[in-house]
Amino acid sequence: MNKTLTELFVSQYSLCKLGAGDIVGVIGEFGQKEAYVAAAVEAARYVGAAPLALTASSLSNPILPPYASSNPEVPALLAGAGECDLIIDVTVGGLIHSDVRTRITGAGKRMLFVHEPADVLQRLMSDELVRERVQSAANSLQAGSRMHVTSEAGTDLQVDISGRDIPITRQWGFVDEPGRWDHWPSGFVACFPNDKTAQGRIVLNAGDVLLPWGRYVHDPVSLTIKDGYIVKIAGNGVDAFVLSDFFARWKDPEVYALSHMGWGVHPAASWSALAAYDPRTLYGQELRSVEGNFMWSTGSNRFAKRETPAHLDIPMAGCTVRIDGRVVVEAGRLLTREA
Amino acid sequence: MNKTLTELFVSQYSLCKLGAGDIVGVIGEFGQKEAYVAAAVEAARYVGAAPLALTASSLSNPILPPYASSNPEVPALLAGAGECDLIIDVTVGGLIHSDVRTRITGAGKRMLFVHEPADVLQRLMSDELVRERVQSAANSLQAGSRMHVTSEAGTDLQVDISGRDIPITRQWGFVDEPGRWDHWPSGFVACFPNDKTAQGRIVLNAGDVLLPWGRYVHDPVSLTIKDGYIVKIAGNGVDAFVLSDFFARWKDPEVYALSHMGWGVHPAASWSALAAYDPRTLYGQELRSVEGNFMWSTGSNRFAKRETPAHLDIPMAGCTVRIDGRVVVEAGRLLTREA
Amino acid sequence: MNKTLTELFVSQYSLCKLGAGDIVGVIGEFGQKEAYVAAAVEAARYVGAAPLALTASSLSNPILPPYASSNPEVPALLAGAGECDLIIDVTVGGLIHSDVRTRITGAGKRMLFVHEPADVLQRLMSDELVRERVQSAANSLQAGSRMHVTSEAGTDLQVDISGRDIPITRQWGFVDEPGRWDHWPSGFVACFPNDKTAQGRIVLNAGDVLLPWGRYVHDPVSLTIKDGYIVKIAGNGVDAFVLSDFFARWKDPEVYALSHMGWGVHPAASWSALAAYDPRTLYGQELRSVEGNFMWSTGSNRFAKRETPAHLDIPMAGCTVRIDGRVVVEAGRLLTREA
Amino acid sequence: MNKTLTELFVSQYSLCKLGAGDIVGVIGEFGQKEAYVAAAVEAARYVGAAPLALTASSLSNPILPPYASSNPEVPALLAGAGECDLIIDVTVGGLIHSDVRTRITGAGKRMLFVHEPADVLQRLMSDELVRERVQSAANSLQAGSRMHVTSEAGTDLQVDISGRDIPITRQWGFVDEPGRWDHWPSGFVACFPNDKTAQGRIVLNAGDVLLPWGRYVHDPVSLTIKDGYIVKIAGNGVDAFVLSDFFARWKDPEVYALSHMGWGVHPAASWSALAAYDPRTLYGQELRSVEGNFMWSTGSNRFAKRETPAHLDIPMAGCTVRIDGRVVVEAGRLLTREA
Amino acid sequence: MNKTLTELFVSQYSLCKLGAGDIVGVIGEFGQKEAYVAAAVEAARYVGAAPLALTASSLSNPILPPYASSNPEVPALLAGAGECDLIIDVTVGGLIHSDVRTRITGAGKRMLFVHEPADVLQRLMSDELVRERVQSAANSLQAGSRMHVTSEAGTDLQVDISGRDIPITRQWGFVDEPGRWDHWPSGFVACFPNDKTAQGRIVLNAGDVLLPWGRYVHDPVSLTIKDGYIVKIAGNGVDAFVLSDFFARWKDPEVYALSHMGWGVHPAASWSALAAYDPRTLYGQELRSVEGNFMWSTGSNRFAKRETPAHLDIPMAGCTVRIDGRVVVEAGRLLTREA
Amino acid sequence: MNKTLTELFVSQYSLCKLGAGDIVGVIGEFGQKEAYVAAAVEAARYVGAAPLALTASSLSNPILPPYASSNPEVPALLAGAGECDLIIDVTVGGLIHSDVRTRITGAGKRMLFVHEPADVLQRLMSDELVRERVQSAANSLQAGSRMHVTSEAGTDLQVDISGRDIPITRQWGFVDEPGRWDHWPSGFVACFPNDKTAQGRIVLNAGDVLLPWGRYVHDPVSLTIKDGYIVKIAGNGVDAFVLSDFFARWKDPEVYALSHMGWGVHPAASWSALAAYDPRTLYGQELRSVEGNFMWSTGSNRFAKRETPAHLDIPMAGCTVRIDGRVVVEAGRLLTREA
Repeated sequence: MNKTLTELFVSQYSLCKLGAGDIVGVIGEFGQKEAYVAAAVEAARYVGAAPLALTASSLSNPILPPYASSNPEVPALLAGAGECDLIIDVTVGGLIHSDVRTRITGAGKRMLFVHEPADVLQRLMSDELVRERVQSAANSLQAGSRMHVTSEAGTDLQVDISGRDIPITRQWGFVDEPGRWDHWPSGFVACFPNDKTAQGRIVLNAGDVLLPWGRYVHDPVSLTIKDGYIVKIAGNGVDAFVLSDFFARWKDPEVYALSHMGWGVHPAASWSALAAYDPRTLYGQELRSVEGNFMWSTGSNRFAKRETPAHLDIPMAGCTVRIDGRVVVEAGRLLTREA
Repeated sequence: MNKTLTELFVSQYSLCKLGAGDIVGVIGEFGQKEAYVAAAVEAARYVGAAPLALTASSLSNPILPPYASSNPEVPALLAGAGECDLIIDVTVGGLIHSDVRTRITGAGKRMLFVHEPADVLQRLMSDELVRERVQSAANSLQAGSRMHVTSEAGTDLQVDISGRDIPITRQWGFVDEPGRWDHWPSGFVACFPNDKTAQGRIVLNAGDVLLPWGRYVHDPVSLTIKDGYIVKIAGNGVDAFVLSDFFARWKDPEVYALSHMGWGVHPAASWSALAAYDPRTLYGQELRSVEGNFMWSTGSNRFAKRETPAHLDIPMAGCTVRIDGRVVVEAGRLLTREA
Repeated sequence: MNKTLTELFVSQYSLCKLGAGDIVGVIGEFGQKEAYVAAAVEAARYVGAAPLALTASSLSNPILPPYASSNPEVPALLAGAGECDLIIDVTVGGLIHSDVRTRITGAGKRMLFVHEPADVLQRLMSDELVRERVQSAANSLQAGSRMHVTSEAGTDLQVDISGRDIPITRQWGFVDEPGRWDHWPSGFVACFPNDKTAQGRIVLNAGDVLLPWGRYVHDPVSLTIKDGYIVKIAGNGVDAFVLSDFFARWKDPEVYALSHMGWGVHPAASWSALAAYDPRTLYGQELRSVEGNFMWSTGSNRFAKRETPAHLDIPMAGCTVRIDGRVVVEAGRLLTREA
Repeated sequence: MNKTLTELFVSQYSLCKLGAGDIVGVIGEFGQKEAYVAAAVEAARYVGAAPLALTASSLSNPILPPYASSNPEVPALLAGAGECDLIIDVTVGGLIHSDVRTRITGAGKRMLFVHEPADVLQRLMSDELVRERVQSAANSLQAGSRMHVTSEAGTDLQVDISGRDIPITRQWGFVDEPGRWDHWPSGFVACFPNDKTAQGRIVLNAGDVLLPWGRYVHDPVSLTIKDGYIVKIAGNGVDAFVLSDFFARWKDPEVYALSHMGWGVHPAASWSALAAYDPRTLYGQELRSVEGNFMWSTGSNRFAKRETPAHLDIPMAGCTVRIDGRVVVEAGRLLTREA
Repeated sequence: MNKTLTELFVSQYSLCKLGAGDIVGVIGEFGQKEAYVAAAVEAARYVGAAPLALTASSLSNPILPPYASSNPEVPALLAGAGECDLIIDVTVGGLIHSDVRTRITGAGKRMLFVHEPADVLQRLMSDELVRERVQSAANSLQAGSRMHVTSEAGTDLQVDISGRDIPITRQWGFVDEPGRWDHWPSGFVACFPNDKTAQGRIVLNAGDVLLPWGRYVHDPVSLTIKDGYIVKIAGNGVDAFVLSDFFARWKDPEVYALSHMGWGVHPAASWSALAAYDPRTLYGQELRSVEGNFMWSTGSNRFAKRETPAHLDIPMAGCTVRIDGRVVVEAGRLLTREA
Repeated sequence: MNKTLTELFVSQYSLCKLGAGDIVGVIGEFGQKEAYVAAAVEAARYVGAAPLALTASSLSNPILPPYASSNPEVPALLAGAGECDLIIDVTVGGLIHSDVRTRITGAGKRMLFVHEPADVLQRLMSDELVRERVQSAANSLQAGSRMHVTSEAGTDLQVDISGRDIPITRQWGFVDEPGRWDHWPSGFVACFPNDKTAQGRIVLNAGDVLLPWGRYVHDPVSLTIKDGYIVKIAGNGVDAFVLSDFFARWKDPEVYALSHMGWGVHPAASWSALAAYDPRTLYGQELRSVEGNFMWSTGSNRFAKRETPAHLDIPMAGCTVRIDGRVVVEAGRLLTREA
């Protein structure tokens, strides 16, 4: 039976170990996603927590230009959030890449972004298996020195991930530890390789996905990577045309940089989601989380002090991922210890 | 001039011969498609009928997983519907494949599903011509023994439709007889061939349509059919990729089965509807009804006691359909007795 | 802390011992009191019950004319309700005096009418004390033969309540037995005296209340009662004027008949509610339930086969009520065994 | 021409000297008074300020019981408010008597409560004249030792207001100084006399007003005052009845205490407002502000550490108010220096 | 059965003989009474007429101050209305006393104001009987020279209505002639006596009605009339107090003038409507139309070139009205030729 | 910071030099695009103008069939609009190709169509640079005799634009001159070449755009042009299939005619907009305005007295446009005098 948004938040709060008397801060934008605000508030009441909605009118960011770096009401927003135990982020674009997020989690608060439609939230509700897979994958990344990605379509990419301190993003879809941020639903791992070390070629193939656009690639696009940057975009189809135009429009060389890389582990996520749903209603977490995808991204990388607008996430099918020669994903199939 | 939803229901009630004093039961889901419920109720008042809305909160079915087989409130729903003269189904997904439908029509009630946007309902409003074409096509199917479908793109499929009792679906878009079910708008015929008799190859071509996804096929997909099942999916494009992933996700061999087959007869339906409209607002009845299409489907077949989730309807252009050697559709052109 | 309507229904369902798997039928009217329908449905889901909303478009009754006696969709409504375990009535006027109610409870179903605003529902939520007081008062009525009501203002009324079978209304605000009807919130008892036996005088005084109008009486109104009918209305103020006009407008002698009589027992109900709230948002259950009121009514009495429109409920303050000489309410003070 | 709520907030912000870059915090309650929240936010954007809405789900207080003293989300609310330059309070009941207010203004923030309908906000928009009158009246109170109030109807009340430090409320309807609280619209002054010093009699007369009930008194009510408490309520009409019931219901002797006293100065406020408007849509600021009224109140007095629920404000017409023998209001006519 | 607003407009359009192809102009105010606009438009479509809504944002007038005399968008509004066959006025206050009305009807257009709730519109839907009674009463007024009104309560008023040309208002609730204005529902006649000729006394009594306030008079108010003006208001109750304050607030001697006078004829209208309905939802047409009332008004009189704000309509019960000595209403009872 | 729709209209009104006291007529359709109507009205109030909304219920046109040529309420609509200084068109489809537009601008009124979502309106807000580019491009067209368009993909088209009087459309996105029409946002020029003079071939390539469908072309489509008409459509992909079906459906040879041609000049418009936005929320002005596109259209041409339904606008990338041999756009790059 389909659950309501409120019922889903009640389940999620349970994963987040939200208790009676805790304060839930719900950050939203004026006139936007009101059903999510209402559900987050109502569910908080049901579990005995105290909800406070913090609604700013100017957090929303245009899709094309870069995120606004400062909003005058942010200090008040942060002060309110600073007294909450759990922050639910239901802004339109999410505060993922913002200072607001960093400062809230830096203060030890848990923060969870929510955007997908109710049935995606329900179908991809997380559990311990997802968390374990993410942790195991993250350990591989942390211990490794070199990631090598290949595909039958022609991808052949090498990056340096050596060093115990390379930043690693672990997303399993709930937040039950202080200072933890996550996005409901999720099931993937990613690292930020050492900057400007990526070399080789990425060949996007039919069925690969461009996010946040919610588009399948239709015709091959060949991207030449040198010292961490895309230096050439080739291909005859609409995808190569649109990607070329998109990058060029920013008039900013940094948009061509590669950012994070990793792979999906969620057993319930499906490549066909963009066909089965209206892709414009999706944020794309299902595609980011497909078990055995290889996902890389462009643009901003706060660990490399690179702030640029044109952030794309690109989950690819059929890739083989090796860490120091060990295969972790084989032709799009996740190798797990479970079997 | 564009009509309102209420005005359109008034016209439709006239086709359905709804009279003063009749009871109209409107089955909907809580918080969904409320404009349709309101219009169905308001129009009933205008024609002097008595409307009763029956609103269940758990009828909706996720898009990907199978339809829920039981809802606890169904007995009360059926009891209410059992006293109505005409049932309008405005649930989100429709009760097409449900027990609820079977039991309502089994009790001799008329039942009509409605989902398309107002201007599609208006443009494809049915008439006697559509009914006659459907009946004539159904007679061909009933009298025939063998259906043979070919296309320039490579389709070459044979199925056994012998026997007077093969199930035949006649959809002309209104319900004026006891126990009749239909979907407004419609204009097509389909039969359920004898199970596991389909043999050959179906080649999807650019412009063919995948429903309920509302997508045109972009690149050829070759499907090998053996003993009524798809046994191989081949093709380089995004469509082959997505279809392969979609079928495999269910981990259920029955999803590969072929279900009903037939052709469209509606003179006002157009292949370009998916381009001219936002396809996500359409249920796809226009494509199912294009005059001269060949439409087949996958998955569930209640006559073969096969219940599976992944039900796709696939209208194809440019096919030639023969019944016992007689051409009824020639390269996508419907042969009618009218001319 | 104020509760939401949904939270209040959850509490009420607990009083009504609604269990998982039970079916809740919510009878409403199209476009009316939608927040109550939504809350009743949502709360049902929370307790694991299955909700079905039955929405008729023609149940609403004008305030002045008599209740409509027949609606064509009623058979379908009753059939649906007949399969439910608990019926929530959120129609505008309530189905209190209708056949629909009688037939639903006659079929052994529990039925609960709800109309008051959320904070009245919360403040007057019932409990065992209220039930015990109602039962005790009902026992007095059942055992008694004669009710005598007097007041300092001049009321002096006698009625015959002899016979074990005089109809008695016990309203304590929840329904936990098959076939039981109640109105949430409530806390009063009433009987239908033997018809045409009332004799004497009722003097309405400043502060007495006219329901459903939600008005305090401002100036004394003297009503002469003979053989169960009001035969004279006297007084100089606006209340006498309006009452006279109201009764005369119906052109029906039966509107002058006295109907049920009894008294309130709810410890949390207050006379000043009509001042503290907007009286037009109240159905008046608080006034009907004030501990120690004397409430009588006019018009319809289904036990006397009397069906008339002008039904008024009139709770009065400061009365003394005697049953066979024993004082049960003394100058507006309820005498209880509790102290 | 009638202004919209947004246009009115723009005007009010100008009175409050709100500047570009300032932060406006709008405190509201979930699902309540949303048009006011929207207007306050939108107007802030127009003047270049940054709005943040702080929406709590549990601030609302029932009308009858006392204000809830603690809400778990209050710390987060206060932290957010603490970073704002101006706080607009659009909670249902207002945070007038709450800790939240005291702590916000105590932190030097300006705070303005808003509740009245748009045309009352417009018609009673304040100006310098109102402020000067309030300041002048406050000076009289501060300098005085004894207030003596008489009326033709029989009022004869004396209170001790000696001491430089008696608390004085100055409400002129806008906030342009740090730490200042006000209620838009307003135009009156009030002091909290030395506790338990009121002696004599107050006779409410036809046309006097009971707030927050929005009711005119219809028949005389004589209140005997001894040592600061109402010790007797006499009268034959509905008002005496309701007041007696209301005070008695709380089962708390402190509800009978007198609280603040003062008089109105707003030249545009009218006694007939309760007739011309639906009184239930009014908070009553117009009546509190009528030029030349005498307004006193009952119940809570935080300066006397008295916290009780039953707070009534009672503006009276036709009184004469003397401060140390000097007439400041003569038979309901305000004596000003202006003429 | 209760009708919807749309169904009621369909009935009303039939009374107004609106035909297919006619244009209906619906004049409303932005964001106000939208259900009426929608119903007027929808009903027009049903009868085959073409609806155009003309929505101005500044027509609404505050309740207390005078009607705004000019709005800049009026020329465009009039130009649009000038091409319509029937104008439905659903502005908040109605354009009754405005230039807009005069200019529309002056151009030969029919115009109908609508404000009451749906069930009042339904219950008081007009017919030929109402029209005949209005016409007959109007003939009496036109032929007469002197109106004399008396009542047991002390009213004794004489006015000069001589001359064939005294303005007479005939309101029967529908418009089926060019240039005709009416207000749905209505059933009364009124004339504008020769100016400054009224002499004597009007004594308002308990049960009389003050409009647009929707209040019953509670205690007698004696009004001395001299040369067409109220020169003294006497009485001890709240009504005398409020009326005195109301008239004085305008600081305009013309508000004391008497305006039109006449009587009600509608057999379905009731004095008790203000008790049975929330009076604030009523415009008051039912009270203006009670068969046998005497209704007079104050303030504006465009035939005497008097434009003032404080317009009150005052229907009184129990009066005797004589035209040139002939009794037309006897102690509140309409004398008709019908019996 | 993102602006609200109202704030954007305020900016736009400034470009349009709308002044205090001017009348703004807002033409909309019943129940459609209400946020735009509200914003246009509210913004008008802010700048001191008087807004009047003219709402017709039947202006909307189906997407597929031709525009309705007559609506009975149009005379009233035009009369109202004729008194306005600025007309904002927020009908669903726009009155671009209607008589209503021609008659309004013919009467010297300014008229502006608005449809795009708020952030597109903001990002493409116009300025003097855009106007200058449009004027300069229009001068080239006016002075020229022959337009020649070529592309690497195979386009080779010649048209005759000789004559001083060929119609030229100059769209820069605001209207500050009497009789001027524009569409906000815009930045392009187009002419209607001399009829039936186009000869050659147009080859649509991946990335070109079909409007109003909001689709990228995926596979090449070759269109043979003879004497101003498309005489052959060739290609293997879905685009050729859909275009062929679309044109054929109309059963009207005139749909194959070429209509206007020109190029885009807006520096902020981007080809990737259809990927970055949900294309179904766009009207497509961004694509029409991309700097350096070549845009041509099919179907209606009022200057050639050709009225047909199937109007497509087709912006193409990478074309070279020559006027009398002079290159104005080179391989998709606009040549400007600015650099």
